[in-house]
Amino acid sequence: MSDIAHYALSDWGTSRFRLWLVDAAGNVIAEKRSDDGLDASRNRGFADTLEGHLSALGAPADLPVIVCGMAGSRQGWVEARYVPVPADLRAILSGAARIENIARDVRIIPGLSQSGHSPNVMRGEETQLLGAILARNLSNRIIAMPGTHSKWVSLQEGRATGFSTYLTGELYALLSSQSILRHSIGDAASSASPDHPQFAASIELMLSGERMLGELFGIRAAMLLDDLSPEGAASRLSGLLIGAEIAGAKAKSSDGITLVASGAMAALYGAALRIAHLDFDLVDADEAVRKGLFVAASSIWPSKG
Amino acid sequence: MSDIAHYALSDWGTSRFRLWLVDAAGNVIAEKRSDDGLDASRNRGFADTLEGHLSALGAPADLPVIVCGMAGSRQGWVEARYVPVPADLRAILSGAARIENIARDVRIIPGLSQSGHSPNVMRGEETQLLGAILARNLSNRIIAMPGTHSKWVSLQEGRATGFSTYLTGELYALLSSQSILRHSIGDAASSASPDHPQFAASIELMLSGERMLGELFGIRAAMLLDDLSPEGAASRLSGLLIGAEIAGAKAKSSDGITLVASGAMAALYGAALRIAHLDFDLVDADEAVRKGLFVAASSIWPSKG
Repeated sequence: MSDIAHYALSDWGTSRFRLWLVDAAGNVIAEKRSDDGLDASRNRGFADTLEGHLSALGAPADLPVIVCGMAGSRQGWVEARYVPVPADLRAILSGAARIENIARDVRIIPGLSQSGHSPNVMRGEETQLLGAILARNLSNRIIAMPGTHSKWVSLQEGRATGFSTYLTGELYALLSSQSILRHSIGDAASSASPDHPQFAASIELMLSGERMLGELFGIRAAMLLDDLSPEGAASRLSGLLIGAEIAGAKAKSSDGITLVASGAMAALYGAALRIAHLDFDLVDADEAVRKGLFVAASSIWPSKG
Repeated sequence: MSDIAHYALSDWGTSRFRLWLVDAAGNVIAEKRSDDGLDASRNRGFADTLEGHLSALGAPADLPVIVCGMAGSRQGWVEARYVPVPADLRAILSGAARIENIARDVRIIPGLSQSGHSPNVMRGEETQLLGAILARNLSNRIIAMPGTHSKWVSLQEGRATGFSTYLTGELYALLSSQSILRHSIGDAASSASPDHPQFAASIELMLSGERMLGELFGIRAAMLLDDLSPEGAASRLSGLLIGAEIAGAKAKSSDGITLVASGAMAALYGAALRIAHLDFDLVDADEAVRKGLFVAASSIWPSKG
């Protein structure tokens, strides 16, 4: 491994900012994580925020930076266009938007859009998707990328043909902290466990066709009538939401699934997919986005490699 | 109509307080509505809050008061017990809890509970339910009571045999004001319309078996890609949630439906039920809760009538 930085890679989302310096082979030399998402960065200025983090890692002034995520949205730094599906993911490599009027070469990767009767957009996940496709040489596959807004992408002969978004993570956060269910979950929102019996029971319930909307209040009632614990309540809410997501996605395809996730997310979704008898392989989400960013950087600045 | 008050009736919920003085026949003599729900009242004291509103209406010191709603919950004034289903609704008339250590005779009507694999509770709606049953002499029926936590009750031979709760209203409020969808709906949350084409299309989509969780983000995407208006976005969100509720309830029964609702709620749910080809008749929600409260008062204090 060399210690000379060739590119800086950044995943810049609504609520978090991540930055890696990598060598010519894509190995990580230095890393920075912060809460400088869109809202925080807009106030300070996107260029200043980025330069501050680069400087903290000792990055040279001429190091090129490739960015994916909501920094490329209308509310972000500059608006990078959307590549419409069906699309070969390599199309995102040539569509990166360059930031003007700054000394450093910074480019933002475009998102994906889906027009028609089921309109949809993604920003950030397209880079994770590209990384996962290249890491596993995928061509006919369903790619599941769980998160605040979970994305499920259909890949046919290597092309992304369509995708769905599930509001699973955002709904979990809202329901556990702001709805009537906050009285049942309290501080246990991060304690949802794939090993809790409530998790598996809820996944099964959603797979059987029940409506999630009609099951949420049962968490509150089970606390009042059956002394359901906060961990049980969190596991049940997690199971209802992830179960509804998987039941919705399961109905749409019989292709094998690649799950792109890390940590607790990988554990919860992995358990849910097993309960649903869906075959899957796992790609680490952080590695996937770094691989996608590195491939994009190598394509834009090949002479650097 | 006499102008002598025989009873005071109160529907005292989490976020709102309503009070009526009625004559011997149940006709309304005076009315008060306020935001003195549970949280506001707990600080000032429940007795002082109630006396303040009674005094503003000129109620005599010995006027008995019957209360339904969350004032009877563990977080309320005193905890009124739950009557377990299956139950004859008249059971709630004899189970009212009397407030101790105050001069005035105040009673709180018990809620309903459902034990077993689908635990559930209600407080306040049981009184509306009783009122609706008596107003229409219902015996085999589904009673739909939309709201923050919509209740659907199965009535067989006049007995409540079971019920479901849908978090429709609470989810609408959270999603329209706090989620990513707030950018699409803005100040138009109260502009959801049963006449907007997005409303009917969303109801149809949910009746076709789609998962609500996978359709919410489409509202955001349709704004970005297709310039969906705030009113359209609000109508679409309303249609997705109400559609999911009705699809869930529709799967469970073929009995006729009595919709207990007022105002905008009656218009939205009425339109949704028509789109779903479900026969229903309408009972005004305010009249139903007053009738239930009046019947309870007449039963507890018959000599007053």
